[in-house]
Amino acid sequence: MEEKNEVKMEKIVSLCKRRGFVFQGSEIYGGLAGTFDYGPLGLAIKKNIERLWWKQFVDNRTDMYGIDASLISSAKVWEASGHTTTFNDPLVEDLVTKKRYRADHLLEDAGHSAEGLSLSELAAKLKEHKVVSPDGNPISEPKVFNLLFPVYMGAVQNEDSLAYLRGETAQGMFTNFKNILDCFSPKLPFGIAQIGRSFRNEIAPRDYIFRVRELEIMEFEYFIKEADWEGQFEYWRAQYHEWFQSLGFSNEDYKEVELDEKDRAHYSKRTMDFYFKYPFGFKEIGGIAYRTDYDLKNHMEKSGVDMRYLDPETNEKSIPHVIEPTFGLGRFVLAVIAKGYTEDEMNGEVRTYLKLPAHLAPYRACVSPLLKNRPELVAKAREVFASLKKEFGNIAWDDNGNVGKRYRRQDESGTPYCIGIDFDTLGENSNLLDMVTVRHRDTGEQERVHVSELTAYIGK
Amino acid sequence: MEEKNEVKMEKIVSLCKRRGFVFQGSEIYGGLAGTFDYGPLGLAIKKNIERLWWKQFVDNRTDMYGIDASLISSAKVWEASGHTTTFNDPLVEDLVTKKRYRADHLLEDAGHSAEGLSLSELAAKLKEHKVVSPDGNPISEPKVFNLLFPVYMGAVQNEDSLAYLRGETAQGMFTNFKNILDCFSPKLPFGIAQIGRSFRNEIAPRDYIFRVRELEIMEFEYFIKEADWEGQFEYWRAQYHEWFQSLGFSNEDYKEVELDEKDRAHYSKRTMDFYFKYPFGFKEIGGIAYRTDYDLKNHMEKSGVDMRYLDPETNEKSIPHVIEPTFGLGRFVLAVIAKGYTEDEMNGEVRTYLKLPAHLAPYRACVSPLLKNRPELVAKAREVFASLKKEFGNIAWDDNGNVGKRYRRQDESGTPYCIGIDFDTLGENSNLLDMVTVRHRDTGEQERVHVSELTAYIGK
Repeated sequence: MEEKNEVKMEKIVSLCKRRGFVFQGSEIYGGLAGTFDYGPLGLAIKKNIERLWWKQFVDNRTDMYGIDASLISSAKVWEASGHTTTFNDPLVEDLVTKKRYRADHLLEDAGHSAEGLSLSELAAKLKEHKVVSPDGNPISEPKVFNLLFPVYMGAVQNEDSLAYLRGETAQGMFTNFKNILDCFSPKLPFGIAQIGRSFRNEIAPRDYIFRVRELEIMEFEYFIKEADWEGQFEYWRAQYHEWFQSLGFSNEDYKEVELDEKDRAHYSKRTMDFYFKYPFGFKEIGGIAYRTDYDLKNHMEKSGVDMRYLDPETNEKSIPHVIEPTFGLGRFVLAVIAKGYTEDEMNGEVRTYLKLPAHLAPYRACVSPLLKNRPELVAKAREVFASLKKEFGNIAWDDNGNVGKRYRRQDESGTPYCIGIDFDTLGENSNLLDMVTVRHRDTGEQERVHVSELTAYIGK
Repeated sequence: MEEKNEVKMEKIVSLCKRRGFVFQGSEIYGGLAGTFDYGPLGLAIKKNIERLWWKQFVDNRTDMYGIDASLISSAKVWEASGHTTTFNDPLVEDLVTKKRYRADHLLEDAGHSAEGLSLSELAAKLKEHKVVSPDGNPISEPKVFNLLFPVYMGAVQNEDSLAYLRGETAQGMFTNFKNILDCFSPKLPFGIAQIGRSFRNEIAPRDYIFRVRELEIMEFEYFIKEADWEGQFEYWRAQYHEWFQSLGFSNEDYKEVELDEKDRAHYSKRTMDFYFKYPFGFKEIGGIAYRTDYDLKNHMEKSGVDMRYLDPETNEKSIPHVIEPTFGLGRFVLAVIAKGYTEDEMNGEVRTYLKLPAHLAPYRACVSPLLKNRPELVAKAREVFASLKKEFGNIAWDDNGNVGKRYRRQDESGTPYCIGIDFDTLGENSNLLDMVTVRHRDTGEQERVHVSELTAYIGK
């Protein structure tokens, strides 16, 4: 089972590179660990997910305010949020090679759970189980390592010029809370939403685009009255399930994981993670955290800016509490691709295809002339292509190689329909004039459809 | 004139903060120079511009491949591109306060041109004109300062872990050139497009969101045969003008500036900048550079990866040349806002409004009940709001304050139409049943429109 899934993951990575979904970052120079470049097809899926998310959680609502904050922010933001002191991973050093490793990973690789262990508990467990480095050497005591990337702004490197690449998108919503209050006078409950990059200096990036150093998050901070937190938590939990449904995921694809107190982040009073069933096992894809008033209170204390909300009914001022639903964008891209990855047998041959929902697929359809050296076929195909592209935008054109190769390419690209223009379409068989071939990705079945009905047919 | 424009710029900055377009980055901690957070309205304009650009230059074409590369990339990328040695600004130090300044800015502030000067020429000019620091103190000789932000990946800070925040988006297209060739077998000419952030450690960020440390660029590298470069340059120059038109800019709003050899970047054989007429003068908003085969050739040499294109007709291999049209996204946002900023007199009072084209405005329309404490008005207004929101997405709801205040708010937000629901709409005046008031932003004129015609009316 384990091995089979490893093979599946390798096949997915290979398909993603071969078809232009995702490439290793700085690949031509041997790659930069934990960074990835999205190619045209991966970017298309990513944009489809982003657009759907923004529509569902921002545009279709009247209580959500979208922002896009700077990726570099003042060191003071991260001191107030607690990240400079608590955004850490435990590291050990191989005493011979001097290479460094995540202490919790070594413990887990040795077959013991590291969840929720403090640094000293971790140290004790490593000793107890006589854990060594991957090279078999003794290791140091674990030490904390901060995951924020420091950046110096300006010509001089000192404490005054120290800033950080943001470790999470959330702080942008908290530091702009007062701005949103002042500009839009929203009433509780309301949210501030953002899609954007965050950075974590992961010592051990792994599992492809799952654990990376430069990650994209879709998330919002939903500001509420303290008394409402349990109801709001349940409301967003149900909304999160709806989001999974809108991606075409079923109940078997993911599960809820309620976190114990010791496993929760320093700011959270309740956290529900969502785990997706990746080829490498059930792993976190997002979650909901009740962050209390921790962040706004800290920013109010440290900045001196009043973060209180004036209740228009009671005329009382208080700091709102926060429910935070978080969605890992890259992890959702990987989930969509992994769920879609399918192998079957067709015409006696093994074939691979991505069974993507049409609204998430990079291309809605692909148009091809039977032969590319016959101008009359190409002209007709171009006409069909242009009219579909005007309607859907994401229509592919493919006149390379033979029909079989094109199908293989589009199957692996997740394109639901391949549309072929042949001599029958031109009227060689007068019964079939203006009838194109529509070939279905999932079944390989083909039908004749009249060009005038094509838009409705592939739009359904 | 100078002073009047400074006042105008101050008013724009103030409006942008007041209405939720743009805020200073890390504002509650005194701000982090050269960084900005987009609020809901600024983000809406930014997304409208991005969407239009992507449609015009990527989706509506068949020769363009979109990518989204990692922001952090290997130091080797920036060595090959020449940025580690040439992506510099000249700095001088105030010999008394030890503060550092851009040498070219000091020279220009003293009334002398610094364009195209080498470091030694700059040093000579500073001496010749006896330029001092802003505090009146003597200054040091100018020295080069590199604008890349270094980032260390992993637990140890050394040469091996050194990477950079990208100084331009372009390198992502060059380092993925081979990937695009392999995946999609495109024929010359074709382009690779990207929208994303770049980072420059500007010593003197200024002019609001114009000169920043974290900037967003829309750009593509268009790969061509060397012999075609002049024709392709002219083609993209014409396309660039079309882009200006599609934003509603006229010929007076911008101009072309052809760069002399000494003013061009190290890689360019011809560069045409486009300057927009900002309140602080004509300044660069984007440009077109002919980068020759400089980048691909360097990456081929340094990485050993074959960057040659196989011509399917001649069967010859050669490195393509490149035309690069670049568009400063934040600069276009500022241009749209600055062009729209208008003051006039209405009903004997000075009013401020943003005359934005409807397709770029944050909200297409705003819906309001005359009074918010009359449930029948609110219910009807909600109904109108919901039906428009379903159609357009970006519809505002405003029931705060009186009608005059709402108009002022929407005028400053650039909303083309304010839709009012009053007792006549409910049938108090039976001739006006289901007729809403539509108030036009630019003229202040009002008309009655039937709800059944509203979608067509504001969609036109």
